Amino acid sequence: MPKNTKPFSDNNKQQLVLYGRHAVLAALKNPKRQILKILCTKENADEIRRTSKIQPQEVEKKEIDKLFSADVVHQGFALFCNRLPDFSLEEIIEMSQTKNKCHVLILDQVTDPQNIGTIIRSAVAFNTLALVLQDKNSPLESATIAKASVGMIEHLPISRVTNLSRAIEKLKDAGFWIVGMDGYAQTTLDQLDTSGKLAIVMGSEGKGMRRLVEENCDITIRLPMSPLAESLNVATAASIVLYEINKGQ
Amino acid sequence: MPKNTKPFSDNNKQQLVLYGRHAVLAALKNPKRQILKILCTKENADEIRRTSKIQPQEVEKKEIDKLFSADVVHQGFALFCNRLPDFSLEEIIEMSQTKNKCHVLILDQVTDPQNIGTIIRSAVAFNTLALVLQDKNSPLESATIAKASVGMIEHLPISRVTNLSRAIEKLKDAGFWIVGMDGYAQTTLDQLDTSGKLAIVMGSEGKGMRRLVEENCDITIRLPMSPLAESLNVATAASIVLYEINKGQ
Repeated sequence: MPKNTKPFSDNNKQQLVLYGRHAVLAALKNPKRQILKILCTKENADEIRRTSKIQPQEVEKKEIDKLFSADVVHQGFALFCNRLPDFSLEEIIEMSQTKNKCHVLILDQVTDPQNIGTIIRSAVAFNTLALVLQDKNSPLESATIAKASVGMIEHLPISRVTNLSRAIEKLKDAGFWIVGMDGYAQTTLDQLDTSGKLAIVMGSEGKGMRRLVEENCDITIRLPMSPLAESLNVATAASIVLYEINKGQ
Repeated sequence: MPKNTKPFSDNNKQQLVLYGRHAVLAALKNPKRQILKILCTKENADEIRRTSKIQPQEVEKKEIDKLFSADVVHQGFALFCNRLPDFSLEEIIEMSQTKNKCHVLILDQVTDPQNIGTIIRSAVAFNTLALVLQDKNSPLESATIAKASVGMIEHLPISRVTNLSRAIEKLKDAGFWIVGMDGYAQTTLDQLDTSGKLAIVMGSEGKGMRRLVEENCDITIRLPMSPLAESLNVATAASIVLYEINKGQ
């Protein structure tokens, strides 16, 4: 797993260093990012200047190499910036109130940054209103997540909540229908009524949703699939669900 | 990327060392695997014995560590075995002849083993008949692919062909409708008639299909998605297409 240990670690709650062309260029276009410093290789400087008024520091590739662990593919881009501000659940609910149809995605204990990044990319593609994460068991925004999302993290409101069951209750009160993903559910995704406001709850790949979370769902559904395959990759499963719901909305 | 350099490299065309619980246990159940040797940690030995008649060699975890690079999560399982035999395109076509509806997936220059493994997992889940790869530009079966497929590679016929355009011609002659994925296509996936026999062609994430391959398609389609997102992860996109086609078949 690529780690971002220098100069800001993934544990620094305020700041991080993004890398990768798509992630960095998308962040530069986001007014919510406070830019501290841009490092890039000579051949990338023009691309930065076309995107941002902040002057990049042109450095040798090896200078950027030093910022990251060896397995990071930075493509000659390093952006020192703030983490994106979280949305409160109340803000997400307020955004939903002007809509007849919308959906949010709730992840219960999904921890792999690659999967979270891929899910964010799909969520933006399929018009998901927001992502809701449990604060304690989800990684902070990281360069790995931003890169796996190919910069789409700049477009998706993310809310980190302390208590997922309470968040689900609030969404119910705001008119959301709570749909849990469960490999053993009787109803399949294609049978789901996707009109209205939906909150999709997905658990981790190994364990699924926690019992307390599952008990709060209005319905549980599964993907229709061959008995040979017990499950899908969590990012794949989430993407398919978001695709299907977006079609119906 | 996890590499399998010792004692058989990924370039050894006959043999490899699989790792990971799901990948190893699934391989042990596959009669097409010739097993050379099973290494496992003490706590995994009973699980091996319940699955295979071949006696595992119980070793310390560090002995298995030595077989792989440091980033490999082997979970205390290492299986020395042959690579799976390829299917010829003619065998795949023969398998299709008893069916009214089926679909195959053709990957043009998709090279990332994690993505290929994820695609194999989804293909099995969604009843894909076979996977067709271009021999020259696709990685050989590897432990990384097998692990990313969570052992589902044991269930999916794979054909490696020299010339993808010629393979497409043969599939056309056998009654397949050739559907190319292209982000700029006019038709969207949900508008596709999924009855009958379909061959889906997907290119690499950056470049898409090669022109010659695309010209051989009967139709090109795209996923319906927000203009904010230019594309999806290739494994995600393939999985969504296979899901939708499987629903219609």
